[in-house]
Amino acid sequence: MTCKMEANDRASSKKYAADISSIREAQERISSLVHRTPVLSSQILNSISGRKLHFKCECFQKGGAFKFRGACNAVFSLANDQATKGVVTHSSGNHAAALSLAAKLRGIPAYVVVPKNAPKCKVENVIRYGGQIFWSEVTIQSREEMATKVLQDTGAVLIHPFNDGRIISGQGTISLELLEQAPQIDTIIVPISGGGLISGVALAAKSINPAIRIYLPQASSVVDRYKAKPGNEHWSSTKEESMWMCICTLSTEGVKVEKISTDHHPAHMTTKALPTSMLILSDRIVTNPETKTQADGLQASLGSLTWPVVRDLVDDIILVSDKEIIDATKLCYEILKVAVEPSGAIGLAAVLSDCFKKNPAWKNCNNVGIIISGGNVDLGVLWDALNK
Amino acid sequence: MTCKMEANDRASSKKYAADISSIREAQERISSLVHRTPVLSSQILNSISGRKLHFKCECFQKGGAFKFRGACNAVFSLANDQATKGVVTHSSGNHAAALSLAAKLRGIPAYVVVPKNAPKCKVENVIRYGGQIFWSEVTIQSREEMATKVLQDTGAVLIHPFNDGRIISGQGTISLELLEQAPQIDTIIVPISGGGLISGVALAAKSINPAIRIYLPQASSVVDRYKAKPGNEHWSSTKEESMWMCICTLSTEGVKVEKISTDHHPAHMTTKALPTSMLILSDRIVTNPETKTQADGLQASLGSLTWPVVRDLVDDIILVSDKEIIDATKLCYEILKVAVEPSGAIGLAAVLSDCFKKNPAWKNCNNVGIIISGGNVDLGVLWDALNK
Repeated sequence: MTCKMEANDRASSKKYAADISSIREAQERISSLVHRTPVLSSQILNSISGRKLHFKCECFQKGGAFKFRGACNAVFSLANDQATKGVVTHSSGNHAAALSLAAKLRGIPAYVVVPKNAPKCKVENVIRYGGQIFWSEVTIQSREEMATKVLQDTGAVLIHPFNDGRIISGQGTISLELLEQAPQIDTIIVPISGGGLISGVALAAKSINPAIRIYLPQASSVVDRYKAKPGNEHWSSTKEESMWMCICTLSTEGVKVEKISTDHHPAHMTTKALPTSMLILSDRIVTNPETKTQADGLQASLGSLTWPVVRDLVDDIILVSDKEIIDATKLCYEILKVAVEPSGAIGLAAVLSDCFKKNPAWKNCNNVGIIISGGNVDLGVLWDALNK
Repeated sequence: MTCKMEANDRASSKKYAADISSIREAQERISSLVHRTPVLSSQILNSISGRKLHFKCECFQKGGAFKFRGACNAVFSLANDQATKGVVTHSSGNHAAALSLAAKLRGIPAYVVVPKNAPKCKVENVIRYGGQIFWSEVTIQSREEMATKVLQDTGAVLIHPFNDGRIISGQGTISLELLEQAPQIDTIIVPISGGGLISGVALAAKSINPAIRIYLPQASSVVDRYKAKPGNEHWSSTKEESMWMCICTLSTEGVKVEKISTDHHPAHMTTKALPTSMLILSDRIVTNPETKTQADGLQASLGSLTWPVVRDLVDDIILVSDKEIIDATKLCYEILKVAVEPSGAIGLAAVLSDCFKKNPAWKNCNNVGIIISGGNVDLGVLWDALNK
């Protein structure tokens, strides 16, 4: 497929799938189409954290999430003859809605493969923006088969939600805006799922100012559950989609990776996405077999194009507990007055977490940019989470 | 008291307690202290309403509400010798927190008289911003007595939450910003409680562009309850704080005022605040004996300085049902991603209401500014409201 080739070409000819030039090109391409989202601040939250916090509110982006930046860049990068045949995705989340909206703006069709069990509100968003739904069974295999069929029938272009240089470049425009709006920022906390957002943000920010630290907040609930089984020093998974193994030790300081079955990784990285959630410590990656956390918007997988950027440019991981995520979500509503999913509040959770305060770099993090990533707010689901 | 005299002087020497000059002065005074709040838009909400909507998000103002503008203007208007003695208020709501914050910024004390039954979160906000609490009994009389005692003991200046030209001027700076951010606006919907916000917004907007229409959203729940008693064509009240009477007829088109006991009003207007909620049709005012609505942040009373502005400059009232308010609140969370109290969402409710669509001016309202007024979001209370 053309789009995949282009992304791969870029990755092979340059170090990563995107760079500051492609991100600046993306900004030029999409700036009249996307919202320049506001950066909010709160004296109360500054006071609670002891730091100056700058919240880049991508929840106010068109389509309700940062995804529209990448989708817009991808759709408007297409040559006319490609574009007329439309675009395809088999994400059922915010990317599908964002892609539908971008396609609508360009006047081309968007085909979205959706598993039968997709949440109603997500399907409604796709339809609202003019996306055409193709139902599949719930398995990945069925989704991919249906996507292949749609591609064959329509000649449309597949736009991956994150493993694509154009998507990464689009998300990177957030850093360009943020560092114009708050140039004093020395640290940025970026939520991760597939890694498109953090890759773009890190590439742009480090290019503008290499001293800027990039932190990745990670729900520690899996680690906590692991801790509950003393003597169990191995994580492994027999699930088909996560054929990997690592050996790690857990202490009060966090997780330390002793050994990781790297022999499995290269194949994963090039042939399919890595499973989530993953923990990175120094130069190694740990993937968790259990991904159920409060931050349920962050359960995608790293891709072959996002993993190298995350590995090289993310300075450290901040582990946050589910309680810290829920507390931060409440603060988002009650103090910041921004309606977020728990996964959207994980950056605030990180800056308020015990883990961050124990980090040696904490004392140098004075002006912290926090990406509020947005997403679909379902008040019922939120309420259940807050009351757990 | 000095502040009251100044406000009254201005009112007597000019037509209203504030004007475009005092509002521009306020902007100069406070612009480095207040947030320039963002104007959000949503294609989905544009599509639902059939209009271009521009949401001026004062919920992101310091202190969580527009109140900080007026409080800041009042506090920083004081001469040094006045200011050192501090400021007093017996509002327990957002004004008290805003005044405490403004006083803190100027380095002067803020004394806040709070009834014993005040919600905990409101008291916490005052303390958080450094306000000194003086507890009173729950009656108005007890609050006023305590305020008088504090004034005598401290020599501080009383800053009324809305019936003060400096407060009205401060709130008016919202219009200056909004019309810079979205100059195409032809209509502004402004929530009302004491009337400080709508007075300032209307005075500034109509001075910049007299063609701009100002609408006041009003919960119709009282009207609905009235309708449930056929043949009852009189509203009256025997409550001490609402000694008034009007005769009105109700039809499917809304309320029509036939006669109003104006002989009671002049005394009320000059000696004490009028009771709320009020309905205005053409040149007359109707006050409702029952004020219990979903928009429970909007239950203060019009004052002698705000009523003339509301009477003269508000183009019309938009009646909204409690269901319309709750639906709009949900849309604020789920589509706009802004966390509001139901009273903060009443402007969106108005633009989506049946009442507005029946209004002859509706066809000319193409670019609608909506003030999201902010306030304290208590997720528990909100949830109860949404589930009613």
